[in-house]
Amino acid sequence: MREDQFFAYLAGFLDADGSIYVRLKPNSSYKYDFQVSPYVVFFQSASAKVGLEVIQQKLEYGYLRQRKDGIVEYTIGDRSSIRLLINCVLPFLILKKKQADLMIKILDQADQIESAKDFIKLAELIDKFSELNYSKKRRITSRVVRRHLAEKERTLTP
Amino acid sequence: MREDQFFAYLAGFLDADGSIYVRLKPNSSYKYDFQVSPYVVFFQSASAKVGLEVIQQKLEYGYLRQRKDGIVEYTIGDRSSIRLLINCVLPFLILKKKQADLMIKILDQADQIESAKDFIKLAELIDKFSELNYSKKRRITSRVVRRHLAEKERTLTP
Repeated sequence: MREDQFFAYLAGFLDADGSIYVRLKPNSSYKYDFQVSPYVVFFQSASAKVGLEVIQQKLEYGYLRQRKDGIVEYTIGDRSSIRLLINCVLPFLILKKKQADLMIKILDQADQIESAKDFIKLAELIDKFSELNYSKKRRITSRVVRRHLAEKERTLTP
Repeated sequence: MREDQFFAYLAGFLDADGSIYVRLKPNSSYKYDFQVSPYVVFFQSASAKVGLEVIQQKLEYGYLRQRKDGIVEYTIGDRSSIRLLINCVLPFLILKKKQADLMIKILDQADQIESAKDFIKLAELIDKFSELNYSKKRRITSRVVRRHLAEKERTLTP
């Protein structure tokens, strides 16, 4: 399989049974008290684990994790690997093209945060994954971030 | 997307969330009382139906069906379309290569049935999908076919 064909294969795999999303996690060691965690994840039942292992060996990044419910997740969580992967599969995606575009936009903006205002704008972009991925259980939204940073500013202002 | 890239995409989609199998159905209008029904099926949640529609429009065969549990199935069930599709995706499959090879073997043998013995051999090949697909609820196995055809011969012999 040529490289472009392998990335077309991966795009099909990701469209069928993968997920592209970004999570905000409370973490006071970060400047704006939230960690920006991007993910590209491939899912399979444990019986098909070998397929994910083959993909992981070819890509040479990310890690496999067996969940208690029998699902195996192959997760790519570091920003440079995600950029690399998304740039390669983007031309072939049909279902998750919007998520991939949004991810790149978020990674670009995350590199250029200079103020709380910028960070809130980033959180607003991250909100958009909820619609695209039909996920309703997102807890840390831009609203939560905005309130927290406003409160913080108030208590820090002399 | 070039044609070979589209088929690589489809192979990834099929590996992640598709199924290749053959079912035997009791049907007395067929010579050996069982119908050989081959399938290639792609699954998605209803929210991702549009992706299956895009694939169907490109392939120009098969049909979509919305199940009551919210899953949409895109099914290719006629033999010539299955042959066409499998020959195109086979070079790119990683997980379901064995199922694809077995399907082609079964379609070839199904065209050359000349006796009950041949039909039982075909049913034995079809049994092999159970292991490959980890499916345990297969009801009509080669054992059922063999017994039925032996019984039939006994009652028909003067």
